[in-house]
Amino acid sequence: VSDHSTPWRGKFLEIRVDGKWEYAARPGGMEAAIIIPIDEAADGRHVILIEEYRVPLGAWCIGFPAGLIGDTGAPDDPASAAARELEEETGYRASTWTLIGRFASSPGLTDECVTIYAARGLTKIAAGGGVDGEEIIVHRIPMDDVSSFLAKKGEAGCVMDVKLLALLGHADAR
Amino acid sequence: VSDHSTPWRGKFLEIRVDGKWEYAARPGGMEAAIIIPIDEAADGRHVILIEEYRVPLGAWCIGFPAGLIGDTGAPDDPASAAARELEEETGYRASTWTLIGRFASSPGLTDECVTIYAARGLTKIAAGGGVDGEEIIVHRIPMDDVSSFLAKKGEAGCVMDVKLLALLGHADAR
Repeated sequence: VSDHSTPWRGKFLEIRVDGKWEYAARPGGMEAAIIIPIDEAADGRHVILIEEYRVPLGAWCIGFPAGLIGDTGAPDDPASAAARELEEETGYRASTWTLIGRFASSPGLTDECVTIYAARGLTKIAAGGGVDGEEIIVHRIPMDDVSSFLAKKGEAGCVMDVKLLALLGHADAR
Repeated sequence: VSDHSTPWRGKFLEIRVDGKWEYAARPGGMEAAIIIPIDEAADGRHVILIEEYRVPLGAWCIGFPAGLIGDTGAPDDPASAAARELEEETGYRASTWTLIGRFASSPGLTDECVTIYAARGLTKIAAGGGVDGEEIIVHRIPMDDVSSFLAKKGEAGCVMDVKLLALLGHADAR
């Protein structure tokens, strides 16, 4: 634990200063759960992506379903939050969950960590789209078309969430 | 561009509030360059990773070489920053650069975007380790051993940068 001051504190975020370091932190150490939903269906392997307007970016953003753990005030844990957010945002329920790991979002800027799961055995049980005024567009993309889908969305002005590297790694970095 | 207030402003970071949204932003829109260095040498394909202590996390962190674009005050651009940071942090110079893309670090928390490159054709020209008191440990890991290396480092208390998903995607999510 670092020896920091907290010059600003909001409801969801605070600023900490430690020597020359300035960084953003979630009050109470709140973390996020991220879901990589893989639909292995008769028509081929697909990934479920979401598109939503992101105020910090001032842009529509493509990424995976995600949500804060414990933001409802009720008892919560990463796996429960992942299942809830997958269903709320995409309308899919998953039968098989695989923990990929816990990762830091941006180690020089924030203490935020995210726990990432792969979700398989998907069944569509609702429309999705989010709750409380969230306007989330759900995309079901053939795995082989992910790169071209993202390129097209990028040309249209969408910003890509860095976690999409999980899908691009094979093609571009390995 | 959103209609926000700025209740706190530091040297490297500021807080913006827009309705119910609170987020962290880089003053002046400063961005970061990230390098995925792939060493295709006679002894097999390796990736160069760095390990450094990260104050926001209060922990040692494994990730790719990276740096802010334009933080030196001199004219700068993503490709120049990437080449400089690769050399400073790892001691490698690359002959082939491939732009992977520009990504948002954490779209619900910050406007930070990072530009990611793959660097190939590596030549070791210096020790690396960083500048200005940075204490960076350089790891050269066989590509097939990345998962086990990260598991071992995780057990030792290291935190993983989410951009490492670029290496794990093939095994875990696809």
